[in-house]
Amino acid sequence: MRFVSFKTGGKASWGLVEGDDVVDLGAVFGAQAPDLKTAIAAGLLEQAAARAAQGARIPLSTIEWLPVIPNPDKILCIGLNYEMHRKETGRDVVENPTVFGRFANSQTSHLANIIRPKVSTHLDFEGELAIVIGKPGRYIAKEKAWEHIAGYSLYNEGSVRDFQRHTHQFTPGKNFPDTGAFGPWMMTPDELGELGALRLQTRLNGQVVQDATIDQMIFDIPTQIAYCSTFTRLEPGDVIATGTPGGVGAKRTPPLWMKPGDIVEVELDRLGVLRNGVADEA
Amino acid sequence: MRFVSFKTGGKASWGLVEGDDVVDLGAVFGAQAPDLKTAIAAGLLEQAAARAAQGARIPLSTIEWLPVIPNPDKILCIGLNYEMHRKETGRDVVENPTVFGRFANSQTSHLANIIRPKVSTHLDFEGELAIVIGKPGRYIAKEKAWEHIAGYSLYNEGSVRDFQRHTHQFTPGKNFPDTGAFGPWMMTPDELGELGALRLQTRLNGQVVQDATIDQMIFDIPTQIAYCSTFTRLEPGDVIATGTPGGVGAKRTPPLWMKPGDIVEVELDRLGVLRNGVADEA
Repeated sequence: MRFVSFKTGGKASWGLVEGDDVVDLGAVFGAQAPDLKTAIAAGLLEQAAARAAQGARIPLSTIEWLPVIPNPDKILCIGLNYEMHRKETGRDVVENPTVFGRFANSQTSHLANIIRPKVSTHLDFEGELAIVIGKPGRYIAKEKAWEHIAGYSLYNEGSVRDFQRHTHQFTPGKNFPDTGAFGPWMMTPDELGELGALRLQTRLNGQVVQDATIDQMIFDIPTQIAYCSTFTRLEPGDVIATGTPGGVGAKRTPPLWMKPGDIVEVELDRLGVLRNGVADEA
Repeated sequence: MRFVSFKTGGKASWGLVEGDDVVDLGAVFGAQAPDLKTAIAAGLLEQAAARAAQGARIPLSTIEWLPVIPNPDKILCIGLNYEMHRKETGRDVVENPTVFGRFANSQTSHLANIIRPKVSTHLDFEGELAIVIGKPGRYIAKEKAWEHIAGYSLYNEGSVRDFQRHTHQFTPGKNFPDTGAFGPWMMTPDELGELGALRLQTRLNGQVVQDATIDQMIFDIPTQIAYCSTFTRLEPGDVIATGTPGGVGAKRTPPLWMKPGDIVEVELDRLGVLRNGVADEA
């Protein structure tokens, strides 16, 4: 199953993708689950398919997309999690995942523009596989980690590199408004299937700029979930952006920055394509 | 005026401190402002004193304290913002504030125990002045920054140092549940008055371990607000923990870690004392 968050007629909702339509489950479940995060927390996704016949079908081509989870409690980003990217940044090998946070107000959605802020031209792409947490937990064992995943999506963890490097902490460069693209949908684990061999690719104006398979991660998904849940309780709807492969624009010669008019795409085999334009801040 | 968030009879509320009591303004304002963040966002604090006569008075000695803002959108922490602390950590001088984030679920309240997690004994204190944002804004000019402050409080930014140093990103060590003590109240700027000469002190079991005046900050409050609002939109109820003075336990010989049974206090002249016990995770 694939779930989306969207607006229609100015109203935020969520739904199940069927063919080229979305079934409006926000309208079906009403106050019981006004958004996808609440639906996940309430364990309603299993019923979604059965209830879908009751919902209005809306063509995907007419909706206003929202970030898959517009209101996560936490967005945990894993840094330097593919060897080629670690090497291009010159960072040391470490024994634990590198983790930093994004705030929810830095997010944007599929087909929206990623915004280049007026204070920088150093806007970079980072295509990533994103995990959405289903079952909450603390001190989750690696072997139980898969049970805590509600689904998968894509993240373009847009980064303002000069602000990221103002100090040793990444937070400023990772939190500009409308830089973290999250979409197009959340696909459930049963539909995505075995992850390891899936190809994660970022394209800028059609040119492949990042290309890796998921099994090239340094810290695998169970390790990320286990580690993060050691220092924080994971909640339904929490997002883990699992790290970006090598090829980022900042480490090219000359650097390759995203600029207004660009089209950037992040694709994972079977899951789909997250597509965004780039525009200057108004 | 001093505002608190608290529970009474199992119900979360907020109120105005008058003498040894709190006036229950959550009950007065009802759904219009169920919590202090909402009251700040709705601009209701000015009316609070006028409406206080309508509210029930509850002795402070009987309430269950909550973090001053239990549900902030963002907690922005400024690192290395006093020269003695920068030097003791061996960090370079930088031209911009060091910023990292805490998630709201790492917070705890006045008189609660700070929790030492079972995975570490390296639990350290960091006494700090905290700012609560009132008026939202982006690209706030330094000279306008003061207008965006709803009030001041104290933060003990409890840090699990081994996790903080697993990699170059601080997030894991700064987000353990029940480690970020925030209280006892938010004091409005008119009542706190001129900040520069106020003494910020941390005491562990009565021993002074950190001692500085606010004018010893490397990046002053307007600079912090201006910088943070460059990379993120500040919202009502957002918290900026403005950095900790020298004297942290990790940099002592031998290190001085907080342990079960300890009492840790953070005090700012005129504002008051944030007091916490320390306990092992259950």
